[in-house]
Amino acid sequence: MSELASGDQGPWLSPYDLDMVRRKVPMVYVEAIPVRQGPDGDLEAVGMLLRASAESGLQRSFVSGRVLFHETLREALARHVEKDLGPMAFPRLPSTPVPLTVAQYFPTEGYGFHDPRQHSVSLVYPVPIEGEPTPSDDALDFSWFTLEHCHDPALQAEMVDGHAQLLCLLLNASGKYA
Amino acid sequence: MSELASGDQGPWLSPYDLDMVRRKVPMVYVEAIPVRQGPDGDLEAVGMLLRASAESGLQRSFVSGRVLFHETLREALARHVEKDLGPMAFPRLPSTPVPLTVAQYFPTEGYGFHDPRQHSVSLVYPVPIEGEPTPSDDALDFSWFTLEHCHDPALQAEMVDGHAQLLCLLLNASGKYA
Amino acid sequence: MSELASGDQGPWLSPYDLDMVRRKVPMVYVEAIPVRQGPDGDLEAVGMLLRASAESGLQRSFVSGRVLFHETLREALARHVEKDLGPMAFPRLPSTPVPLTVAQYFPTEGYGFHDPRQHSVSLVYPVPIEGEPTPSDDALDFSWFTLEHCHDPALQAEMVDGHAQLLCLLLNASGKYA
Amino acid sequence: MSELASGDQGPWLSPYDLDMVRRKVPMVYVEAIPVRQGPDGDLEAVGMLLRASAESGLQRSFVSGRVLFHETLREALARHVEKDLGPMAFPRLPSTPVPLTVAQYFPTEGYGFHDPRQHSVSLVYPVPIEGEPTPSDDALDFSWFTLEHCHDPALQAEMVDGHAQLLCLLLNASGKYA
Repeated sequence: MSELASGDQGPWLSPYDLDMVRRKVPMVYVEAIPVRQGPDGDLEAVGMLLRASAESGLQRSFVSGRVLFHETLREALARHVEKDLGPMAFPRLPSTPVPLTVAQYFPTEGYGFHDPRQHSVSLVYPVPIEGEPTPSDDALDFSWFTLEHCHDPALQAEMVDGHAQLLCLLLNASGKYA
Repeated sequence: MSELASGDQGPWLSPYDLDMVRRKVPMVYVEAIPVRQGPDGDLEAVGMLLRASAESGLQRSFVSGRVLFHETLREALARHVEKDLGPMAFPRLPSTPVPLTVAQYFPTEGYGFHDPRQHSVSLVYPVPIEGEPTPSDDALDFSWFTLEHCHDPALQAEMVDGHAQLLCLLLNASGKYA
Repeated sequence: MSELASGDQGPWLSPYDLDMVRRKVPMVYVEAIPVRQGPDGDLEAVGMLLRASAESGLQRSFVSGRVLFHETLREALARHVEKDLGPMAFPRLPSTPVPLTVAQYFPTEGYGFHDPRQHSVSLVYPVPIEGEPTPSDDALDFSWFTLEHCHDPALQAEMVDGHAQLLCLLLNASGKYA
Repeated sequence: MSELASGDQGPWLSPYDLDMVRRKVPMVYVEAIPVRQGPDGDLEAVGMLLRASAESGLQRSFVSGRVLFHETLREALARHVEKDLGPMAFPRLPSTPVPLTVAQYFPTEGYGFHDPRQHSVSLVYPVPIEGEPTPSDDALDFSWFTLEHCHDPALQAEMVDGHAQLLCLLLNASGKYA
């Protein structure tokens, strides 16, 4: 029944099916690091969402989400950026599928990045935002941080597991060292 | 029952579960392109397996396989290279998770690369082979091809969907143009 | 005298000094491949200049030029794009210094790419063009080519040495295979 | 005279010519970061030379050097690794010309990385060392550092300008975050 409801009618899964799949295979994720660039392409600011959860309290994070069945990586990136940052964000999606890095999240602590929900293999892309982000209802805020701010350990401590490390990689890869 | 049997006892899926998961989410794959390098690191040859199937006849392909639940990308690469090329292949696995490219295979024809079995997101890595590959039982042969041979359209026509394109990208990225 | 005239007054070299330096050291170059992207970031077209020279006749090429003393790679890219494509091209310069590839041109034929003038080490970047290029006086034309056209051997034969190979790499890296 | 002697007889420059060229154009450099990998390709240690200079005292650095006229990047890497680490280092040179990053050194302080001698554009490659390095006479020592040690600010303070940043990028790119 639940199989008919989900598997045969589209890429969305019922909560029951999603829970089951998550215990069987790694999930494909994309993550978009929102960036602001200067007129010469220079990295100027990095954007983060602020969310509240019962377990972890307030946490900052990049845009992140699952790739659906029969969805391309670019479609998944576009969908998640629009869902999290609104229709006026005007993201510039990457023109090649090669990511900045591949982040691996595991449900077991002390084993790569930690995600209690699942094992995911996440393709991480910096995504320049040329419009005005308006965070969706499930987020409390979206803020831009200058590069000086990005190097602040206090900010990094507020980020979900793995994202402070991805931020550090992005800064270094852009030639913006601490 | 079969769900309990598979989901709770390890990363392997029963054929029934694998079939079901394949219709619901994209599968995470790794692909290893076996390469021979000269003493100075120069790309000298590319290796391919030869397999026979009822539907497609004889086809050449690189090493390719699924990432299991709770398995790292490197563990999956090591496992599939050993399974396909034997224990004496002595592969040099990549030291960074950034792939040469990300190949997307869809079960629908005319929509990216084609794989009738599933939607997969495949991280592709060139893997230098320093030992002696001995192909596993499910393959008829493993052969090294010189770069001149790699540019041969007849060889490319023998490859599974997508692999001729990956070969072309590898040659170009290594500075070996047609 | 010639040293005062060039070396002490700025990054430009007199023809005499440039000729001398070119026989002593490799020159640092940047190359910008002008690209048009669709709204979703997909590669849609590649731009090329058409120039005439006494030795080679009509030839197509990307934007290419020398990095001056004390100039950053990004400054050099911006300067050469503006010089060749005019002030209304509105290029999006790369945010990281990692190039698509490094092309090596040598004055000796049959040894990498050929440039009779010099040995150069050239950092190659795809550069999205968001405005309207107006080619400078030393070019006869600037044209956009669709991806189908890019795979045309007749077009590739019109390109300066190395650029057909760079085009092929760009197409493959963007997932646009022949 | 010195011009004839150098420019016409080979890629080496007299001190007079090298000094002159250095004030006119950016120099092409390669840098090799010596790395030790585990059997599965995992980054395990990073190697550094220790040198003494009158101006800067004791300083640690990676292998670094100029690309000569008509020399390929790979030849330059091989030459500098052999010169600095001896004939038994057995480096594995990169199979693609795409570097980890491009470091830009300027003779002016506060403007990118600093090199009082020159403006250089340096292509940086991690180079696995499979043999036994024996540092050349101009170095006091060559040592391997574990990844924990690499994150130590005291070690980073001993490194020549830019190399602590390159180390940080390498660790992050290899998934080894602080």
